[in-house]
Amino acid sequence: MSSSTEQTMTIPTYDDVLAAHERIKPYIHETPVLTSRLLNELTGAELFFKCENFQKAAAFKVRGASNAVFGLTEEEAKKGVATHSSGNHALSLSYAAGQRGIPVTVVMPRTAPQAKKDAVVGYGGTIVECEPSTSSREAVFADVVAESGADFVHPYNDPRVIAGQATCSRELLSQVDNLDAVIAPIGGGGMVSGTCLTLSSIAPEIKIYAAEPLNADDAARSFRAGHIIADDAPNTVADGLKVPLKDLTWHFVSNHVTDIFTATEEEIVDAMKLIWKRMKIIVEPSSAVPLATILKNPDVFKGKRVGVILTGGNVDLDTLPWLNN
Amino acid sequence: MSSSTEQTMTIPTYDDVLAAHERIKPYIHETPVLTSRLLNELTGAELFFKCENFQKAAAFKVRGASNAVFGLTEEEAKKGVATHSSGNHALSLSYAAGQRGIPVTVVMPRTAPQAKKDAVVGYGGTIVECEPSTSSREAVFADVVAESGADFVHPYNDPRVIAGQATCSRELLSQVDNLDAVIAPIGGGGMVSGTCLTLSSIAPEIKIYAAEPLNADDAARSFRAGHIIADDAPNTVADGLKVPLKDLTWHFVSNHVTDIFTATEEEIVDAMKLIWKRMKIIVEPSSAVPLATILKNPDVFKGKRVGVILTGGNVDLDTLPWLNN
Repeated sequence: MSSSTEQTMTIPTYDDVLAAHERIKPYIHETPVLTSRLLNELTGAELFFKCENFQKAAAFKVRGASNAVFGLTEEEAKKGVATHSSGNHALSLSYAAGQRGIPVTVVMPRTAPQAKKDAVVGYGGTIVECEPSTSSREAVFADVVAESGADFVHPYNDPRVIAGQATCSRELLSQVDNLDAVIAPIGGGGMVSGTCLTLSSIAPEIKIYAAEPLNADDAARSFRAGHIIADDAPNTVADGLKVPLKDLTWHFVSNHVTDIFTATEEEIVDAMKLIWKRMKIIVEPSSAVPLATILKNPDVFKGKRVGVILTGGNVDLDTLPWLNN
Repeated sequence: MSSSTEQTMTIPTYDDVLAAHERIKPYIHETPVLTSRLLNELTGAELFFKCENFQKAAAFKVRGASNAVFGLTEEEAKKGVATHSSGNHALSLSYAAGQRGIPVTVVMPRTAPQAKKDAVVGYGGTIVECEPSTSSREAVFADVVAESGADFVHPYNDPRVIAGQATCSRELLSQVDNLDAVIAPIGGGGMVSGTCLTLSSIAPEIKIYAAEPLNADDAARSFRAGHIIADDAPNTVADGLKVPLKDLTWHFVSNHVTDIFTATEEEIVDAMKLIWKRMKIIVEPSSAVPLATILKNPDVFKGKRVGVILTGGNVDLDTLPWLNN
């Protein structure tokens, strides 16, 4: 990491995590940790599933979004918040803004699924549509911010968001003793960065792994290359994991992650179905990527106590991936 | 209830429930109680969902089956246990017998779904097939018992089974204060009888409701008629609820249940999908019948604190009922 890059970033500290946790506690769940005898037998490890699928808006992203929203001054808050996302960050920011009672605008491609649009509106968000291209999205988003003065809450490359996501592993450490490792899915790297922030601060002996779809393995390739590689339009069933690392998340990933594993689409869907079938809980495809990689790399995890972050549970129940094959 | 009927029955007492709970504790989960802000808003009630879908074998029936299996003497146990069932009782008895390491034989129609057969075998059970008729099932089952001397564990009309199921509401009372009512699905009436046994003994102020598919409403009609009415072959998506009341369960239902409500197939499937979507947990159709009837009878439940038994989570993930319509 060159010093010139560092100068442009505000890197959150563990004090920021403690402040975030205090700030967001009224608006989030302390999610349960579940175990499964059968999945332990299958993997040879002791797995502790941190169930962010039971989180508000069914996504860990409520943690970071709430920290950003409730950290605004009264004056800033009046102008509202804005983001561009068609996924869990859009829902989560809409939820958090609704809790504070401030405006929230989400720029979404007009082609986004109606269910996602409905969910944002259901949480009180306003949608501004753009064309499904980066140039249109950026132009429309710039207009929204210029007009409203809304605070831009990036889905992951934002120190407030990372400090919020970091509260998840802080909870996990209070719920499970003597973990050897924690593994989380990686897309833009917000959850993994938060995990790095907490563990490197208070439990540096715990290894941190990331899990990524092979079809969107830009983080794994970045990790091996030593610099950020961004793919243009990867396609994977784990739709929360298509986005690339950015400077802030790269800082954490490059400094604290032990390894990044990948899984094929079939492995991800199989792991997702396995969680549904055996644990009787609903998780989205992204949440299943860590288990898929644990099953694929038994020697890394055998005999270890492993925290597994189940990142969310937003699934269209009418189009399950194992029924579309 | 005539005294002549009572003479043929052994009615379990609350002491039997306490003994059952002590006996089965090593083999069952104390299942969690979940709540949902949205479902509370939709119903106007405070709902406390007792998650037996997270139970061993994903069914409350493990409680009664384990009580029967672990209550056998060493000599009785050697001969094993047997039952006829193609549902959760078959899985549960197989699980419990496997835990004790004794033989278990399940008589199933040769037409039963392969997935159910695989599950019984997976838990260590032996399947003996019969033709899909009552006469064949009874003849084959009689042969099995005559040959092996196995102990017959009826799915519900057995005092050991009812005392076991009664541990579920005992747990619920230790987890939630000041309940006004408890509602459970009713098929043969094992869970409802267990609920009656516990509540009438230690919390008689709590009302007990039962919920039944309209397509298999023999319990509701029995309740109104004042005697058992058994339907021949009802057809409902809630496949655990097709069986009729028997003398022992009728004893509890007729003495302690306040009312039995019914729901249509569509209402059951809608309620099931609502639980999946909002609570992010997997429940089988039978588990959704109580919520369907609560939504349908808001005046009964409004403002009340209601325990809702989610009885199981065994679903074929490849054939979801809302995708078959």
